[in-house]
Amino acid sequence: MSRKALALIVSLDTKAPEAAYLRERIAAQGVDVVVIDFGTGEPGFVPDVPAEAIATLGHGDIAALRQERNRAAAIDVMMRGAAAWAAKAYIEKRICGVVSVGGSGGTAVGTAAMRVLPFGAPKVMVSTVAASDIRQYVGTRDVTMINSVVDFAGINAISEPVLRGAAAAAAGMALALKAPLTSKKGRLVAASQFGVTTPAIEHAGRLLAEAGYTLVPFHATGIGGRTMEDLIADRMFDGVLDLTTTEWADEVVGGTLSAGATRLEAAGKLGIAQVVAPGALDMVNFFMAPVPDRFALRKLHRHNANVTLLRTSPSENTEIGRRIAQKLNAAAGPVTVLFPLRGFSALDAEGQVFFDPQADAVLLQSLKDNLEANVQLEELDLHINDPEFARAAVSALLAHLGNWETTTHA
Amino acid sequence: MSRKALALIVSLDTKAPEAAYLRERIAAQGVDVVVIDFGTGEPGFVPDVPAEAIATLGHGDIAALRQERNRAAAIDVMMRGAAAWAAKAYIEKRICGVVSVGGSGGTAVGTAAMRVLPFGAPKVMVSTVAASDIRQYVGTRDVTMINSVVDFAGINAISEPVLRGAAAAAAGMALALKAPLTSKKGRLVAASQFGVTTPAIEHAGRLLAEAGYTLVPFHATGIGGRTMEDLIADRMFDGVLDLTTTEWADEVVGGTLSAGATRLEAAGKLGIAQVVAPGALDMVNFFMAPVPDRFALRKLHRHNANVTLLRTSPSENTEIGRRIAQKLNAAAGPVTVLFPLRGFSALDAEGQVFFDPQADAVLLQSLKDNLEANVQLEELDLHINDPEFARAAVSALLAHLGNWETTTHA
Repeated sequence: MSRKALALIVSLDTKAPEAAYLRERIAAQGVDVVVIDFGTGEPGFVPDVPAEAIATLGHGDIAALRQERNRAAAIDVMMRGAAAWAAKAYIEKRICGVVSVGGSGGTAVGTAAMRVLPFGAPKVMVSTVAASDIRQYVGTRDVTMINSVVDFAGINAISEPVLRGAAAAAAGMALALKAPLTSKKGRLVAASQFGVTTPAIEHAGRLLAEAGYTLVPFHATGIGGRTMEDLIADRMFDGVLDLTTTEWADEVVGGTLSAGATRLEAAGKLGIAQVVAPGALDMVNFFMAPVPDRFALRKLHRHNANVTLLRTSPSENTEIGRRIAQKLNAAAGPVTVLFPLRGFSALDAEGQVFFDPQADAVLLQSLKDNLEANVQLEELDLHINDPEFARAAVSALLAHLGNWETTTHA
Repeated sequence: MSRKALALIVSLDTKAPEAAYLRERIAAQGVDVVVIDFGTGEPGFVPDVPAEAIATLGHGDIAALRQERNRAAAIDVMMRGAAAWAAKAYIEKRICGVVSVGGSGGTAVGTAAMRVLPFGAPKVMVSTVAASDIRQYVGTRDVTMINSVVDFAGINAISEPVLRGAAAAAAGMALALKAPLTSKKGRLVAASQFGVTTPAIEHAGRLLAEAGYTLVPFHATGIGGRTMEDLIADRMFDGVLDLTTTEWADEVVGGTLSAGATRLEAAGKLGIAQVVAPGALDMVNFFMAPVPDRFALRKLHRHNANVTLLRTSPSENTEIGRRIAQKLNAAAGPVTVLFPLRGFSALDAEGQVFFDPQADAVLLQSLKDNLEANVQLEELDLHINDPEFARAAVSALLAHLGNWETTTHA
């Protein structure tokens, strides 16, 4: 077995002692290190890949960056460059992961390179900003974030144990890598859920288990939907049970838990089988945030201390249906939409606060008006949390999986 | 050499498969695992330390917690209990670090136990909330935070690589531990700085280096001051050059970068020599936050896009002086306060926007009125960033260090 290698992405004008120490400690554990410089100053030692090359990959020019002294612009270029370098080196099997050390700028560059690596590849960031809001750095990835505790100023009794731990973690992760993570040993199905659609997902999970599949649920909280999309794009799943598309309500209406405008794209792009339902599209979420004044006269429901919900309106549902149809029409693989006529969530059920069959019917009509022939739409006289609904969803998915495997293996 | 051991702190009612896998993988790398359960349900396997014991250590009762079903109250008890258990086990050398896996509650409990361990002890948290605002979890500690990417639901192709990496990281860190980190090989001095006092700290750093000490600067941004206090409490430093006490302005007046009411306590409690100055006490910081309306008529300065500064007033300086004196009076070790009569920061210098000798004089008077005899106060006809000021500060500290070492080694 050839030695593993990690890319060490670092600004060598300010972090050369730290980089040299990390390289030495990682190498001592039997893992090679490729040093990538992204600094715009004089490097403290000669890197394997100079900052000029990273700037060029980031569509920038190192001479111009040095002259401009615009730190934000330099960081943008180096983020693009480091990510481009890491993606290519990983595909070419020259590295198995990325380790990095830095402040706010270095964390931006290091984690940009980490986020392009697939799930399971070692990603270790030693950061001065690791005790703060790190969502922009981690994104939807399995990034290991180590708080540096102090600003780096060379190797001393404060920085040495942090760097030693980071080197041990990164080398250990590299050595622990085994067979490709996308192997099909366990057949996996991704599912989107919310508290108010949990019965549907739990029932579907049991039925899928009987059929030899493992269901992996994602909370439809924005970051959950984004993560599911990213892991679908990584080819981690055989099929998708996207029963809780509620993030589209937040995206269209302006709630706090939107998963962005690319939700529902990944499975379609790869032709992965999907079954989709309008789970929790009766509600827009305001989580840890006030409901904007423009909704003051609308139907609101205080879900708990941190969450207030807004009932989606017929006109909003027209747009939500249009957007969902647009995404599903573009799918290269099989798609079935199952529409539960008796309600989309625990709150949208007869006698509950968000029950509104008229508003739901508008969503159905919008889907009918906009979906193209490649997408099957089935209306079911059921509530989304009825066991029969989950059974129908699993049946539809298994049918697609059977068909699709026949096709791809032909 | 006996085998290292890590505590694995986990809720065994919901995370038993993950805990079993982590234990197996860590043990396979030659590190023992002590499993601590903090779940209030039925544990999936028998732990080394049951949840009953952790609840008792947290001044709670497991039966009552099970009956109440108050999750927040249970987490509070378990945080206290897990921290108490870990602190004792670490001191008794039964564990060298902590690893944990969990959601928001589990992350609160696991990191509470990590935060009581000293700097350098392995602390690895696998968390579903690691792609968010983690400052409350990490605090001022060298916590390694690994994003679990998905909710845990047993061992599958999604969770396995994350847990495998976490086990490799934790075991690697435990095996990489060496001599006690508080060894006096490198003599270290902690210093507080801000951009507007950086010349003072840089000059002091050069002078200290000549005397065989390494200066470790902390940014006085609230978290920086807290971190410095925590590392002082860990006995990492021989002396403290606390020239930038600006966080007291934010604490007293209501700025955004307060380090809390315990700032300036750690060195005094342990009797560590300190030299203190009123660096940047001319300013209250509003970072990424609007200046409250009550300050609208006061002297404000827009420092950059994210920071607006408020000039401290004479009456505020009276209170700031009182609070600082109160902390220093309590010191068990030697303390010198050096007061630069020509200004506290780059902005509080002749011709600069915050130059106000009258307001500064009020702070001096308050210190004179409140400091007790154990604290030396010296007035210097210098600006804080004058090289002579740094020289005086370093001289005072070195004098204390000489005296103190004589005392403690006598």
